[in-house]
Amino acid sequence: MAPTTLGALARQLQSPGRLSAIRGAEQTPVHGVNTLEDAVEGEISFLTNPKYRQLALDCRASALIIARNEDLRFKVPVLKCEDPYAALTVATIHIHGYRRHPQWGTSDGATISPSAKIGPGASIAAGVSVEENVVIGKNVVIYPGTYVARDVTIGDDVVLYPNVIIYEACALGNRVTIHAGTVIGEDGLGYAPLNGKWLKIPQVGCVLIGDDVEIGSNCTIDRATMGTTRIASGTKLSNLIAIGHGTKIGEDCMVVAQVGIAGSAVIGKHVTIAGQAGVVGHIHIGDHVQIGAQAGVTESIAAGTKVLGSPAAPINDAKRQFVLIQRLPEMKERLKALENEVQALRRLIPEEGGSPGSEPGG
Amino acid sequence: MAPTTLGALARQLQSPGRLSAIRGAEQTPVHGVNTLEDAVEGEISFLTNPKYRQLALDCRASALIIARNEDLRFKVPVLKCEDPYAALTVATIHIHGYRRHPQWGTSDGATISPSAKIGPGASIAAGVSVEENVVIGKNVVIYPGTYVARDVTIGDDVVLYPNVIIYEACALGNRVTIHAGTVIGEDGLGYAPLNGKWLKIPQVGCVLIGDDVEIGSNCTIDRATMGTTRIASGTKLSNLIAIGHGTKIGEDCMVVAQVGIAGSAVIGKHVTIAGQAGVVGHIHIGDHVQIGAQAGVTESIAAGTKVLGSPAAPINDAKRQFVLIQRLPEMKERLKALENEVQALRRLIPEEGGSPGSEPGG
Amino acid sequence: MAPTTLGALARQLQSPGRLSAIRGAEQTPVHGVNTLEDAVEGEISFLTNPKYRQLALDCRASALIIARNEDLRFKVPVLKCEDPYAALTVATIHIHGYRRHPQWGTSDGATISPSAKIGPGASIAAGVSVEENVVIGKNVVIYPGTYVARDVTIGDDVVLYPNVIIYEACALGNRVTIHAGTVIGEDGLGYAPLNGKWLKIPQVGCVLIGDDVEIGSNCTIDRATMGTTRIASGTKLSNLIAIGHGTKIGEDCMVVAQVGIAGSAVIGKHVTIAGQAGVVGHIHIGDHVQIGAQAGVTESIAAGTKVLGSPAAPINDAKRQFVLIQRLPEMKERLKALENEVQALRRLIPEEGGSPGSEPGG
Repeated sequence: MAPTTLGALARQLQSPGRLSAIRGAEQTPVHGVNTLEDAVEGEISFLTNPKYRQLALDCRASALIIARNEDLRFKVPVLKCEDPYAALTVATIHIHGYRRHPQWGTSDGATISPSAKIGPGASIAAGVSVEENVVIGKNVVIYPGTYVARDVTIGDDVVLYPNVIIYEACALGNRVTIHAGTVIGEDGLGYAPLNGKWLKIPQVGCVLIGDDVEIGSNCTIDRATMGTTRIASGTKLSNLIAIGHGTKIGEDCMVVAQVGIAGSAVIGKHVTIAGQAGVVGHIHIGDHVQIGAQAGVTESIAAGTKVLGSPAAPINDAKRQFVLIQRLPEMKERLKALENEVQALRRLIPEEGGSPGSEPGG
Repeated sequence: MAPTTLGALARQLQSPGRLSAIRGAEQTPVHGVNTLEDAVEGEISFLTNPKYRQLALDCRASALIIARNEDLRFKVPVLKCEDPYAALTVATIHIHGYRRHPQWGTSDGATISPSAKIGPGASIAAGVSVEENVVIGKNVVIYPGTYVARDVTIGDDVVLYPNVIIYEACALGNRVTIHAGTVIGEDGLGYAPLNGKWLKIPQVGCVLIGDDVEIGSNCTIDRATMGTTRIASGTKLSNLIAIGHGTKIGEDCMVVAQVGIAGSAVIGKHVTIAGQAGVVGHIHIGDHVQIGAQAGVTESIAAGTKVLGSPAAPINDAKRQFVLIQRLPEMKERLKALENEVQALRRLIPEEGGSPGSEPGG
Repeated sequence: MAPTTLGALARQLQSPGRLSAIRGAEQTPVHGVNTLEDAVEGEISFLTNPKYRQLALDCRASALIIARNEDLRFKVPVLKCEDPYAALTVATIHIHGYRRHPQWGTSDGATISPSAKIGPGASIAAGVSVEENVVIGKNVVIYPGTYVARDVTIGDDVVLYPNVIIYEACALGNRVTIHAGTVIGEDGLGYAPLNGKWLKIPQVGCVLIGDDVEIGSNCTIDRATMGTTRIASGTKLSNLIAIGHGTKIGEDCMVVAQVGIAGSAVIGKHVTIAGQAGVVGHIHIGDHVQIGAQAGVTESIAAGTKVLGSPAAPINDAKRQFVLIQRLPEMKERLKALENEVQALRRLIPEEGGSPGSEPGG
């Protein structure tokens, strides 16, 4: 934690948060960022969601980051920003910084193959295994219990949290972060049916992960049967996500927890996939597509489309369907009423050669 | 296993199972509890689900626990209980006991920081890492491969199964049990969009877990971005569950496998969430709410409500919707029939100034 | 990798791939199998999905495996097969082989109880724990960080990848493969409600896994409360799958990633369960049932049935329902139009004693 003042902080936020005004004493000391509920004196908090305006008024923080067009009057100094969320992020980085990792050097308790090459600045814990022909870049941190199989390549400034498993011949770019318990490059479900049994297909491909990718905990990224499973630079995955063999995910995507993407799918850039959604294999998802929570995507999706539902439909269609499903009881009643009405009308109508009220054919 | 007799066992069940009667020889030896299908002589079994009555009649157990109002006649002695499920549980505890953990003392193969404080009675296996400033209570068991990061606090009588990962500064209460492979306090998916890239927000909060919480295997509990993610006392989680950053779960909840709860959700007490259900972030779930399997909860829910479906609806509405969706083909047919009928009627009706059978406007 | 020639390879494929013809030079050298996109000279590729025919024509591979009835003309030699997928598999096995595991012998860095019995040919890595009374067969490979609790039995030729956890008293057959991070035999969610709290039921059963079972990464297989959870021979599970306590899965099933099967379910043989599907407890799924992705199975299913949807319905019903849900806006319009039409008709009909155009009752 680096204590600062509101004025110094404001200068940090000018460009990324597009600071538009500072209201209050620049010398106000700030030593932490916190939520509206938990902030205390000496901390700065933030109002980005209008539903928390009352909380913001009641907040005990010493200062607030607010949107430029927020017109509430606060007793404490405020920083008005065009992008308060970015401002908050930069303030948090400035004051708190990112996690500091233990400095293990290359621990005697690690099991490292003589043929592995490890760059300078490494921090490799006891209980790590690095197998033959592994190549590791500079300033890499590997926490306990992590296993790096033969022929894996790891770039610079990579962090592997505890108990990460990387199967053979996979490659990670620079500044990749993988959280505890995630498995990269295990075999996918690859079998051929033969005489009523499942014959295992050797999974001879690998996984390639681009620069600046972050992957959460307990995910599974299948190696390709042949060729590569690929996660392009800048993409972020949350936890408990399953990526099938041979799937390619483009740059700067955001994938929320418990999503599953089946094999040989091709996902574009800047795609957002919300929690528990599923994508079938062998389809193409265009750039900037947004897939809603629990959606079931069964067909390719054109760039820029937002989808929802299972099976997934364009978001407005899906929402209309949801509403109409809720109204099914009413539709059923109206249908029944119409049937009764029409039956009554039928009785009233003069048949050809007949008279009002006579029975059909009467 | 502690062999006993039916009479001794019956005395154990009086209060928790509300024993109402014992029918048969009190001296019947009982050395195990087993299912109706697998039980053999010397074991006691149980009938709590009426669909298994025939199995119970055919069962080879030496005794049965049954509901007070069960009127089947059994050849073997029975214990009639008002709460046969609680009785069964207490019988199992009495005869089999809970898992006995290995006694490792503090293994030489564990890596423990000199600044960590560990209470008396610990059993810490080889391959465990305990980092600086960790405080651990009495009688704690930590299995191999578990990693406890700096500044973590752990209460008394806690059990951490193998390969559990606890990130820095999280706190666990007393009698907490965490099963193999679960990750507590990893970073959530916290990024701010900035110039088309994702800027990582330092996750400076932590996770607080109350007393008597049990968490299954391979779960992921995100640390809060700021403040705390909280799981209150007595709550039980199954496996492969994802809890988002800043979410608060109340006392004595029951969360089934593969549930996902997004960030900043607030869940009340005694809430039940069935398998694969999802709850979006920033909403409030009242006490005693029951959420059905695969439900998708997108809005706050009042206390005591049961919901089902995706998007979730009150259970009776959801069930009616499910039925009506099944009847859509029939509704479509009825709609078509009505259209035909109305068209026919239209032809029969004397238009103003016209005659039956003439075309509209004819 | 074992380089070969097209002719030698063709002889390997005669039976399993039902080779019907070889077109081109038998002496063509082949040293790898690869995808249509990635194959280069010296590799063989394959065309099994007609949607990739153009890719196959453009492919740079030195040979292709194609279906017997494929009539495209290729510049490169081809192997025509009745079962090209099996042929491809056998070619991959022949040329690439399966993963070769490190030969650790029994590492000094492993922690093995003196009472454990380990068969000949074992390769057990540093950081493995094998507890008391464990019995392990021949030629077993155990990667680092794997924990085998007391009284576990493991057959011959088993492979346990890194960080697999097997709780006490479970049993694995021969040729079982378990991928990194999977947990076998942890406690299920077993509690009895007692005085507003959850009383833990000791989970005294175990897990039995048959021969030739392969389980992916980060799965959780609950031990039975009493008796056994069973996965029969030949069944294959992908990643992040949750199997409840006491569930029995039959022979040769295929279970895709993120599936959840609740406790005490009974699944037949050759059942296929697609990704993210859920099956409730205490039901029976017949042999050869196919359950679609994201399906929610709430009732027993007869053998041979294909189901889809949540709640699951026979596949044709489910597909019709999906279509009709999409048409709900249209149905609503038609209903409204009918209501208007009927109201208009009503006005035109001569009431008994009335006249066309008079108001109802007018």
